[in-house]
Amino acid sequence: MKFASFTRGGGGVAVGVVDVARGEVLGLAAAAARGGRGAPAFFASMLALIDGGDAALAAAREEAARWPAEAAFALKDVRILAPLPEPRSLRDCLVFEQHLVNAQKQWEAMTGRPPAPIPEAWYQRPGYYKGNRFSVVGPDVDVRWPSYSELMDFELELACVIGKPGRDIAPEDALSHVFGFTIFNDFSARDMQVVERPLGMGAAKSKDFDTGNALGPWIVTTDEIGDPQALRMEARVNGERWGGGTSADMHHSFAAIVSFVSRDETLRGGEVIASGTVPTGCGLELGRFLNPGDVVELEIERIGVLRNRIVRPQRGGN
Amino acid sequence: MKFASFTRGGGGVAVGVVDVARGEVLGLAAAAARGGRGAPAFFASMLALIDGGDAALAAAREEAARWPAEAAFALKDVRILAPLPEPRSLRDCLVFEQHLVNAQKQWEAMTGRPPAPIPEAWYQRPGYYKGNRFSVVGPDVDVRWPSYSELMDFELELACVIGKPGRDIAPEDALSHVFGFTIFNDFSARDMQVVERPLGMGAAKSKDFDTGNALGPWIVTTDEIGDPQALRMEARVNGERWGGGTSADMHHSFAAIVSFVSRDETLRGGEVIASGTVPTGCGLELGRFLNPGDVVELEIERIGVLRNRIVRPQRGGN
Repeated sequence: MKFASFTRGGGGVAVGVVDVARGEVLGLAAAAARGGRGAPAFFASMLALIDGGDAALAAAREEAARWPAEAAFALKDVRILAPLPEPRSLRDCLVFEQHLVNAQKQWEAMTGRPPAPIPEAWYQRPGYYKGNRFSVVGPDVDVRWPSYSELMDFELELACVIGKPGRDIAPEDALSHVFGFTIFNDFSARDMQVVERPLGMGAAKSKDFDTGNALGPWIVTTDEIGDPQALRMEARVNGERWGGGTSADMHHSFAAIVSFVSRDETLRGGEVIASGTVPTGCGLELGRFLNPGDVVELEIERIGVLRNRIVRPQRGGN
Repeated sequence: MKFASFTRGGGGVAVGVVDVARGEVLGLAAAAARGGRGAPAFFASMLALIDGGDAALAAAREEAARWPAEAAFALKDVRILAPLPEPRSLRDCLVFEQHLVNAQKQWEAMTGRPPAPIPEAWYQRPGYYKGNRFSVVGPDVDVRWPSYSELMDFELELACVIGKPGRDIAPEDALSHVFGFTIFNDFSARDMQVVERPLGMGAAKSKDFDTGNALGPWIVTTDEIGDPQALRMEARVNGERWGGGTSADMHHSFAAIVSFVSRDETLRGGEVIASGTVPTGCGLELGRFLNPGDVVELEIERIGVLRNRIVRPQRGGN
């Protein structure tokens, strides 16, 4: 199933199942409430649905099978929001080797410092930093160019959303803890990243600014995604293909990543873990950067398209 | 005021005002509810109190002035919990120059790699990474030694808790956005840190494990703390002084840090931002590490003592 968060007219945020072929989204609470039985609490939000576990998924599947017309709305008549507007956390890995190689060449061109060899540790375990879970926006939301940057970029990433909580999860069990997958556009201020990299503390203000993390358009459940390590990915700017690749090139699989992160640490439902950038899935690797008004479309097979425009506020304005 | 989260007998988590001289904590909801008027929602949790803003603070001050005996309990009869069991976020800076110098010498001894000079960027703006907000424990909770580490350490840090939300906060306004200050013990797996440092993504599993972030014993409000840049800090292990210093040595003040972090980014109440380690405020700088069963006491002037024991679970056990 594809789960979306959406609003309609002036209404609140609803959770729905998307049927792309039909061009519709089914509001789960509305579907369950027809007949006056009231909607179960786990249809109240995406986090509630995730926390509702197998029972919530089964109930959603039942409503989707019925697809009552009075709770179904054309996708063009609703606004699709970030599927998880406030993830419980947002981890971002860096597990595509060629992205690292390509990016290091560009850092060298920008700073004059030769690239360090990829450390052996990179091959042995996934690294990650944590992003700002409050900066999440959904599809078609304008991303705000931060005032301190002149060099803005996007990053094409595949992200998993944890479902069933767990600790010390074995790699072979890890995907059973994943609720589903979505697209992540990790907007990045490259000039701030040049400043931050020598600090060795990971990305901070280069990634942390309001609206800087786009997620969506919806979450595709693990059973529907098929093999998450075999998805084509493509990035377009103003309709022009800039780059892309496949999740098959992840040196550490999502199963390995989830297992590693959960060592001695309890993962919660609604935590998001992203892959890092697919090779050529950002402007940096190509020596190209965004201009104000550019529209970035990220497409991942079996999920869909995440589209965002970047806008540059006037100085002193909002 | 000093605000604590506490439990008593089998009861739920309450928010209280601590009077150290009296040796008592006043339960705010219980104090407000006596007389049958019911307790305001902002006394339901520390986050609710913080979100309640000036009105909540004024109401708490009023209850503390009355100090009704039937809502006051001896500190020895309650269990003090982490003041914020789930901060909205947990940022950790590194703003003490001498800590960086001392630590780099030890990294050199451990890895054979000579220390890099401190980058100019370090002096110009604070760097930070984000910790795991779910791994927070309070005073006197046993911290669990992660299975993947042989070299465990503590870190003595001063932390601020954001109160009033804001974005693009000027340094001169920044402390008015700080609800208060508490002590942070950032337990660290140094051998994992050796592995992670070359990745350049900041601390990950070296800091991320259940129970690894101790906060407490309570939050001292900004008006009571006086000058947050003039607090003596001391670390003791099993009663022996290992090191300490003063927050006066922070190269970037809390005002500067809060202002910097808020650039183009909205800070929420209940977000925690820590200073990083005071020089000699961890074992690494001294070439010493923790042993299972060690009791770490961190003391900061005007706040109190945060005490935690580190325990090493048997392999295969819980």
